[in-house]
Amino acid sequence: MHIIESILDIDFYKFTMGNLVFQLYPDVEVTYALTNRSKDIHLADYIDEDELRKELDHVREISINNTELHYLRGTNEYEERMFGEKYLQFLKDLKLPEYKLERVGDDYDLTFTGRWSEAIYWETIALCIISELYTRSIMKRLSRFRQDCIYAEGKLRLQRKIDILREHPDITITDFGTRRRFSKDWQDYLTGVLSEELPRQFLGTSNTYFAMKYGLVPVGTSAHEMFMVMACIMGDRDEDIRASHNKVLQDWWNMYGWGLSIALADTYGSDFFFQDMTYEQARDWKGLRQDSGDPIEFGEKAIQFYKNYGIDPTTKMIIFSDGLDTETILKIANHFRGRIKVTFGWGTNLTNDLGIRPLPIVIKVKEANGRPAVKLTDNLAKAMGRPEDIERFKRIFNYKGSTFKPLNY
Amino acid sequence: MHIIESILDIDFYKFTMGNLVFQLYPDVEVTYALTNRSKDIHLADYIDEDELRKELDHVREISINNTELHYLRGTNEYEERMFGEKYLQFLKDLKLPEYKLERVGDDYDLTFTGRWSEAIYWETIALCIISELYTRSIMKRLSRFRQDCIYAEGKLRLQRKIDILREHPDITITDFGTRRRFSKDWQDYLTGVLSEELPRQFLGTSNTYFAMKYGLVPVGTSAHEMFMVMACIMGDRDEDIRASHNKVLQDWWNMYGWGLSIALADTYGSDFFFQDMTYEQARDWKGLRQDSGDPIEFGEKAIQFYKNYGIDPTTKMIIFSDGLDTETILKIANHFRGRIKVTFGWGTNLTNDLGIRPLPIVIKVKEANGRPAVKLTDNLAKAMGRPEDIERFKRIFNYKGSTFKPLNY
Repeated sequence: MHIIESILDIDFYKFTMGNLVFQLYPDVEVTYALTNRSKDIHLADYIDEDELRKELDHVREISINNTELHYLRGTNEYEERMFGEKYLQFLKDLKLPEYKLERVGDDYDLTFTGRWSEAIYWETIALCIISELYTRSIMKRLSRFRQDCIYAEGKLRLQRKIDILREHPDITITDFGTRRRFSKDWQDYLTGVLSEELPRQFLGTSNTYFAMKYGLVPVGTSAHEMFMVMACIMGDRDEDIRASHNKVLQDWWNMYGWGLSIALADTYGSDFFFQDMTYEQARDWKGLRQDSGDPIEFGEKAIQFYKNYGIDPTTKMIIFSDGLDTETILKIANHFRGRIKVTFGWGTNLTNDLGIRPLPIVIKVKEANGRPAVKLTDNLAKAMGRPEDIERFKRIFNYKGSTFKPLNY
Repeated sequence: MHIIESILDIDFYKFTMGNLVFQLYPDVEVTYALTNRSKDIHLADYIDEDELRKELDHVREISINNTELHYLRGTNEYEERMFGEKYLQFLKDLKLPEYKLERVGDDYDLTFTGRWSEAIYWETIALCIISELYTRSIMKRLSRFRQDCIYAEGKLRLQRKIDILREHPDITITDFGTRRRFSKDWQDYLTGVLSEELPRQFLGTSNTYFAMKYGLVPVGTSAHEMFMVMACIMGDRDEDIRASHNKVLQDWWNMYGWGLSIALADTYGSDFFFQDMTYEQARDWKGLRQDSGDPIEFGEKAIQFYKNYGIDPTTKMIIFSDGLDTETILKIANHFRGRIKVTFGWGTNLTNDLGIRPLPIVIKVKEANGRPAVKLTDNLAKAMGRPEDIERFKRIFNYKGSTFKPLNY
């Protein structure tokens, strides 16, 4: 058994984005790169290169099976038959592009280059593999009993989360933690438990495979890469780069309409986002996703934004998905109760909270269409890109934020 | 599968006592009775009578198998071939006597009457059955996940015990918790864990089956019933009853010599015990078992007792076995370090510490040889017998103690 045994063991947004990319921008060449945000954990100290290669190679050998195609074809949570036959046929024939892995000192350089429509699927898959190989290397150093105790700790922490959420029955959550999960088996267990213990509050999972397995709603819309690649597609001129942001919103709306209309609001800082989103977009889109910076500040800005347009904010929704834990969720929910709808895309702290520090890894677009990719976000600690490009984008997007909240790794 | 699937799933002292009884007092008629020390837990609210009958009936159907006989025949930890062929043949043919079960209100009246040599085996077997049926009834009320969390809690509590014991590598323990274990599977798990995690500190187990399974030393000597039944055998006169106490020590020494020479010191209060034990006995016997009252006080008395006889107390050992938990173990070990050898027979808090309150049940001799049985101990809350008999025994044994430490149920 390998870590990834199904192409559906992936974040659902890879399919929603993948479908759009397949139809509109299939041939743009994109490179994704792994970043390990930890300065003191060196991956090669934990993960054997051969093992990593075996897991990555295996992903290139598996294909989506007929049942999985049925599942995707039958997806109707956002729009009837949102995935067309051409796309499904493409997925059936898909073989993920090659990866490039190189050991550099005690770290790994891992990149994926290929047509955007094909390379897009590596992100959460490769993150899952690295996360789980890391987990295994830590677990291997423990006795059988100590390993049991890791799971015991994870169960009791999960129990505390469930107990607290039950006390606040209006809070709803979605599992967004595939990419940094402790292990596939643990996410499997956790998904089953949340389905049974919080049937009305656990709305779904970003993991397509577990959504299928447990009859849950597969959840996901889009990621920073949409904006980052679009900036690279649209050109070199400042005004083209600036325009690329709204182009993503337009493409997305044209493709999916209301069903998937949750806008990720922080690629170039939320101040720019709120300037850029038009009245019609604000009116039509379901809501926003907050993924960096201060969640309370962001929510207040969003409420003001809707009010300025004369839109009732209580008809809109914010999905919070940045570094959540129980305390933050309660704080946000209590703060905004009755003022705007909120829900929570709960990531690492949900799927990897067993007492072993999760590996702070991300895989992000590094370049596309021959140009370097950039994101800023509402927390410069999360910015990606070469320093000179980041500076240029700050200028283009009139980025005033100076928040730098160190990521706790 | 039933709860008891092997006659070896029993405290080893039932064999050490059983062997002596088989040879010396096989035909004495004895009645054992269940006592539930809890006032607010009524067993029939939790345990179905039919289920209880099925479990008890099953025990009467099983026989010791050939491997188990080999194991007992090969027991040499205390003396070569301590179990003779006649006794082993007797065990092979043994069918436990009938039980008498009656529902009285929401409680059960459960007694076992028969020849001492045959009825003796019911005690820990029946306690295991009732404990586990109780556990199951509590667990059944919980969701699957909450059940998982009970085990998770148990594992983490066990981990804390192990961590603390590792910090005190001179402390040694034996599992004495068969009778009130959470379940057979839990004791199985726990025994495996302790064998792996504390190989030098976990000396053995009172459970013969798990001793066999894990290659551990089976541990056990004798119980109050030896003294209680002997008093009934020896007669009605005060002096006969008084003499019965030393008769047990003499019989035991004659049967097993040094190997099993740990004397249970509290049947009629330890003050009487220290008066009654002769210099030769004090000199020859390995040590004492403390099972009620204040352990520190008892240990101090014991040290003084040996010193008064001119015996070096550091050559003697006390096995503490009364209501131990980590804190008490540390306190006792620290108090007596270097002054007398100590070791710990850890019961309920070892085998049933998962967050569900263990059932405080005991099965004790109620009458023997047509006479009522009595024990006093160093804590009158643990005294057994009719009030008038207890008073008489207090007089006979010059019992001055007035300790009544409520048992925390």
